[in-house]
Amino acid sequence: MSDSRHGSEFDLIDRHFKPLAEGEAGALGLTDDAAVLDVPDGQQIVVSTDALVAGVHFLADMDGHDVATKVAGANLSDLAAMGAAPKWALLALQINAATSDDWIAGFAAGLGRMLKDAGATLVGGDTVSTPGPVAATLTVIGWTPRGCALTRSGAQDGDDLYVTGTIGDGALGLLCWTGKLTPNDHLFGRYARPQPRNTFARHLAQDGLATACADISDGLAADVGHIAQSSGVDIVIDTPLVPLSTPARAALQVDPRLMRVVLAGGDDYELAFTARPANAGAIQALAGRENLQVTQIGRVVGQGGQVRVVDAVGQPLDLGPGGYVHR
Amino acid sequence: MSDSRHGSEFDLIDRHFKPLAEGEAGALGLTDDAAVLDVPDGQQIVVSTDALVAGVHFLADMDGHDVATKVAGANLSDLAAMGAAPKWALLALQINAATSDDWIAGFAAGLGRMLKDAGATLVGGDTVSTPGPVAATLTVIGWTPRGCALTRSGAQDGDDLYVTGTIGDGALGLLCWTGKLTPNDHLFGRYARPQPRNTFARHLAQDGLATACADISDGLAADVGHIAQSSGVDIVIDTPLVPLSTPARAALQVDPRLMRVVLAGGDDYELAFTARPANAGAIQALAGRENLQVTQIGRVVGQGGQVRVVDAVGQPLDLGPGGYVHR
Repeated sequence: MSDSRHGSEFDLIDRHFKPLAEGEAGALGLTDDAAVLDVPDGQQIVVSTDALVAGVHFLADMDGHDVATKVAGANLSDLAAMGAAPKWALLALQINAATSDDWIAGFAAGLGRMLKDAGATLVGGDTVSTPGPVAATLTVIGWTPRGCALTRSGAQDGDDLYVTGTIGDGALGLLCWTGKLTPNDHLFGRYARPQPRNTFARHLAQDGLATACADISDGLAADVGHIAQSSGVDIVIDTPLVPLSTPARAALQVDPRLMRVVLAGGDDYELAFTARPANAGAIQALAGRENLQVTQIGRVVGQGGQVRVVDAVGQPLDLGPGGYVHR
Repeated sequence: MSDSRHGSEFDLIDRHFKPLAEGEAGALGLTDDAAVLDVPDGQQIVVSTDALVAGVHFLADMDGHDVATKVAGANLSDLAAMGAAPKWALLALQINAATSDDWIAGFAAGLGRMLKDAGATLVGGDTVSTPGPVAATLTVIGWTPRGCALTRSGAQDGDDLYVTGTIGDGALGLLCWTGKLTPNDHLFGRYARPQPRNTFARHLAQDGLATACADISDGLAADVGHIAQSSGVDIVIDTPLVPLSTPARAALQVDPRLMRVVLAGGDDYELAFTARPANAGAIQALAGRENLQVTQIGRVVGQGGQVRVVDAVGQPLDLGPGGYVHR
């Protein structure tokens, strides 16, 4: 964390970010040019980076704690999609003249909590000034035993399709915030403070229970579409099976057209994965041990590369171009 | 490279960035949630991230090729400072409505050339829209045999202080561009297109020739100051020994006050390192093999934590607050 030209960067790091590097000697106290890290023999590293910009990927008036939670959640969720255990993170934070010290303190606290919950430490970064909006780029590095990583490309004809948790809360939470839906703390919390499924995913990968996996960041239909495309299979999503939270169900009772938001909206950071039917029992047993709802919502039905979303009587639903609804 | 909300991100990646991932199967074609990478047993990973913002860290009218060269050079130079061999990079690119396809193509070409020269491949990233200035955050990952990494903290009393290449060209090049100095292609090229010293640094580390090392990004005096502080030693820089390029020497003949820019300006991306006097011969032999100028410019003179820049008769020079002159 040494290269920035922001005047008080060293102060900022000392006060806010150094505590997040505790416990990892290789972070060198965030004061050297780079971190030096030990990867145990037999492990592969899994790496991902995500950039979030104020007003584009998060609400410009969100507090620092929520922004950090969101950027960390999105990134850690990418590691969950591969079944990797998070270990390290590097932060590049762009702040502007309006960014308060309190905002940064909140950001550091939120990032620290997310990394700690995931078993990871901050090992480096860069804090820079920008005349533009606040933006945060996080790079996360995890481990997985060699050959165990989940990818999007292993789904096979006859597999079942599962999701973790409930679907659509993130996108409905955003509608609450923007005033298009009655405010609801649960839904907004699911939008603002995603909880990536790293522990469940790590067991899923190491126990060899899934054939393909993706996290639901672009929307259920789009992300299952990524699995279908990468694996060269067709996948059917049975809409009536898609698990909904109680507030989401209530919102749909008022306006059934919101199902489109549920199926095509993003920001859930749950997992979608495929598995051989023979593993159904082991998957539910794992879900029970992890106290996580896991629901079968469809199946792989032959070669192709397409996803088909169908209603209760098997009729296809049209979700619009790309199956993805952006705010 | 899967999580962005930029409309044509998949197109952008396919056309511009996918070729940069060739040769690394673990990049998964930049289409999965994360990359899965093999670290050979016995190696540590060395990681660093740098964010560069248009108008702050690079000139807003620089072409994409030069911006990519600069962000890659700055980052790869951080790995050089630790003596690590670059292997992988992740890019988070923020573009705005004014960013042309040509600019992005130039950026990808510049990044590709720098990574290829360094022996690294692109394994992931994120391309996002911003209403603000263009910004690029690069994260680089390298390897070094366990226990071989150079840090800033190993300098000892009696060590010699060396630098690679010539000093001050980057800061003088910036003055050329901003019209404060007669335009000069060599100086501007050294500002815009840094050449990190990864190969030399890797040998320096693996042969155990240096006690401490830093790259010169904040300015010679400031970066040698980082070594002094981290190592708890005092270091003297003998100004007359600091190696200058021919154009830099010419500029100094016209205006000797520019020596302050040479000593305190940044953007050189050369290395400053300390070594036991007994290794002087081995260091020059390595420099010869790598065809790189390496010059002794000072020495470690006892405990303390300060850097002292002295003139030809040993009188201290005052470089101003922090020893660092920012544009």
